[in-house]
Amino acid sequence: MIPVDKQIEIIKRGTVEILKEDELKERLEKKKVLTVKAGFDPTAPDIHLGHTVLIRKLRQFQDLGHKVVFLIGDYTGMIGDPTGKNATRKQLTKEEVLQNAQTYKDQVEKILDMDKLTIEFNSKWFKDMNFEEVIKLSSKYTLARMLERDDFEKRYSSQQPISIHEFFYPLMQGYDSVALESDIELGGTDQKFNLVMGRHLQREYGQSSQIIMTMPLLEGLDGVEKMSKSLGNYIGINESPNEMFGKIMSLNDEIMYKYFELLTDIDMEEIKKMKTAQENGENPMIFKKRLAKEIITFYHSEEDAAAAQAHFEKVHSRGEIPDEMDEFKTTEGKWFLPKLICETGLAGSNSEARRHIKGGAVKINQEKVSDPRTEIELEKGETVLQVGKRKFIKIIY
Amino acid sequence: MIPVDKQIEIIKRGTVEILKEDELKERLEKKKVLTVKAGFDPTAPDIHLGHTVLIRKLRQFQDLGHKVVFLIGDYTGMIGDPTGKNATRKQLTKEEVLQNAQTYKDQVEKILDMDKLTIEFNSKWFKDMNFEEVIKLSSKYTLARMLERDDFEKRYSSQQPISIHEFFYPLMQGYDSVALESDIELGGTDQKFNLVMGRHLQREYGQSSQIIMTMPLLEGLDGVEKMSKSLGNYIGINESPNEMFGKIMSLNDEIMYKYFELLTDIDMEEIKKMKTAQENGENPMIFKKRLAKEIITFYHSEEDAAAAQAHFEKVHSRGEIPDEMDEFKTTEGKWFLPKLICETGLAGSNSEARRHIKGGAVKINQEKVSDPRTEIELEKGETVLQVGKRKFIKIIY
Repeated sequence: MIPVDKQIEIIKRGTVEILKEDELKERLEKKKVLTVKAGFDPTAPDIHLGHTVLIRKLRQFQDLGHKVVFLIGDYTGMIGDPTGKNATRKQLTKEEVLQNAQTYKDQVEKILDMDKLTIEFNSKWFKDMNFEEVIKLSSKYTLARMLERDDFEKRYSSQQPISIHEFFYPLMQGYDSVALESDIELGGTDQKFNLVMGRHLQREYGQSSQIIMTMPLLEGLDGVEKMSKSLGNYIGINESPNEMFGKIMSLNDEIMYKYFELLTDIDMEEIKKMKTAQENGENPMIFKKRLAKEIITFYHSEEDAAAAQAHFEKVHSRGEIPDEMDEFKTTEGKWFLPKLICETGLAGSNSEARRHIKGGAVKINQEKVSDPRTEIELEKGETVLQVGKRKFIKIIY
Repeated sequence: MIPVDKQIEIIKRGTVEILKEDELKERLEKKKVLTVKAGFDPTAPDIHLGHTVLIRKLRQFQDLGHKVVFLIGDYTGMIGDPTGKNATRKQLTKEEVLQNAQTYKDQVEKILDMDKLTIEFNSKWFKDMNFEEVIKLSSKYTLARMLERDDFEKRYSSQQPISIHEFFYPLMQGYDSVALESDIELGGTDQKFNLVMGRHLQREYGQSSQIIMTMPLLEGLDGVEKMSKSLGNYIGINESPNEMFGKIMSLNDEIMYKYFELLTDIDMEEIKKMKTAQENGENPMIFKKRLAKEIITFYHSEEDAAAAQAHFEKVHSRGEIPDEMDEFKTTEGKWFLPKLICETGLAGSNSEARRHIKGGAVKINQEKVSDPRTEIELEKGETVLQVGKRKFIKIIY
């Protein structure tokens, strides 16, 4: 059994806010096993390092001996948005929800101890809730407090319509805590309103209020915007070691230490030492490679991490072409260059390919080609096509 | 079958607003039998003439061959106010609701054709509504439009709390129209927001919108305030002929014509003629007596009306004591006057009795007694005790 003070030290790492820390201490002293809740959207997940900040924190709770509940808001998803105006509230079928849950499992098993994990669906308590109970739930909160939520407030004051049913999503998320009798709920800083709702509703339903913990929203590769798939500034946990290595090496030096704190288990003292060393003139590239190695070792293996590093160093540090490349076999010898770049998968569209060519990012057998109208005649055998610093393909004709 | 134009003339009498009259005409032309809805609170009713404005209108629809639905909002009553803050939303049991429904029946049978009346309870459709359907219902209306309702707007702008559940009452009342597929809904002018909600929700649920009709709120005996039990300015439909006659005669001349329009079947032309006659110098007392007679004949009988008139004329017009009085038999000869007034039922409390005495309203055997400390020694036999102009009792010792 780990002492409470040591537990709190581990729990606090990387958090933005704990409401309230003295309650957390008290709860840890009173109960050996706390119920730790985190809610997840039932939409198809594609987990990236941004999500893992929270999921890793859940793993820490598992390692400390607590019960982690991975709550999937399936009922919310099955209701969707009855007005059809909100794309993020698309109505899902039971099958889609179950499929998405499986996709979650396939991914989070890299981080969580699945044997100890409790997965719950909130349809369990919502599907049989009747009108009277819904009214009771909605009586627990006032309009004025609801409008304190940032997005509602903005929409109301700018006279954008808010449908009455939208008030139910925070109420439902809060009620999940009542149903689970959770001791702690984790969420991103953008979830604070809903987490506090859980505290409030538990009290209203005669329970002790959960402690809430907010985790930071990890910035993406650009170091500024929140990591997200739609912005394209993300590192997926299923990406290849080479992709991961390259992306991590592209981070700026400052954000790197935040990644160390939130995405690795390296001792905070050691992280501080690296930072100090850099300030004293050490090349940050050394630490960034260590970050990449830590992360790739976690999601793949130590060998994969070493190979990715070797690959990266060969390509970038020495400007050479890598030992191994994906191959593209073709029986067609004549190619319009942008089309070839698309076909080999090095660009997603013709216009993207043309942009790369014009930008000087495209080489054929290490010679730059900068006219987007170029027609290629492949020689028999191998041709190396390169786009940017990290993408290579061996064309075999 | 009464022609549509004639029907509309009858329907329009006394209404404040019809939304929309052209829709009403169209609906009457399309369907022979319209479903006419009026909703009633499930709280214990004590029907007075103010309520009858609406109920009489329902009777007119019955006489025109339409289907009248007397809807009791029992589900709303059984939910009550979960916060316990709203006394008018006290939570009722199933038994109380049924008892109150019986009380309604016992009273409205004086006005409505009970054989043709459909009585419904809204628990029929609400008791099995699940969370998803509730969300769907609440998605049909926006916050901004909800806050257009007078009382919400006032409370919101004066920062008084509004609980989210309160938005459900108008939504439920509106949904009742969907469940009943009503063609017309009647309500007081204070109900307009809720009636319009019914129009809106029917459209949202793919039905034709009901036509709504608002009826005026009848002023009470004071001629100013809305008739209501709590203000004491009412005439209950179960009051005795003498009480009714006296109260009606106390109305001011102006309000009398409104009572004629809303509470009797006398032709509008004739009512206008009376008004003109009064303007030309006729004594309005004659018409007021006719009003009293009409109303008492309706709720009691023609004989009762005639007797009440004779009683009234004897007491008031000629200052005599009436032929018949209630009797109070006692074996106690010595009385403190205020106590005697209370015991005989001529006042509700000692302080009220003392007020009457001080005000010069109390006579014993036609002699005024104005000292509230008076002790009476009854003579053997009969003593007439009088409070005000209309209350007499024969004390037998």
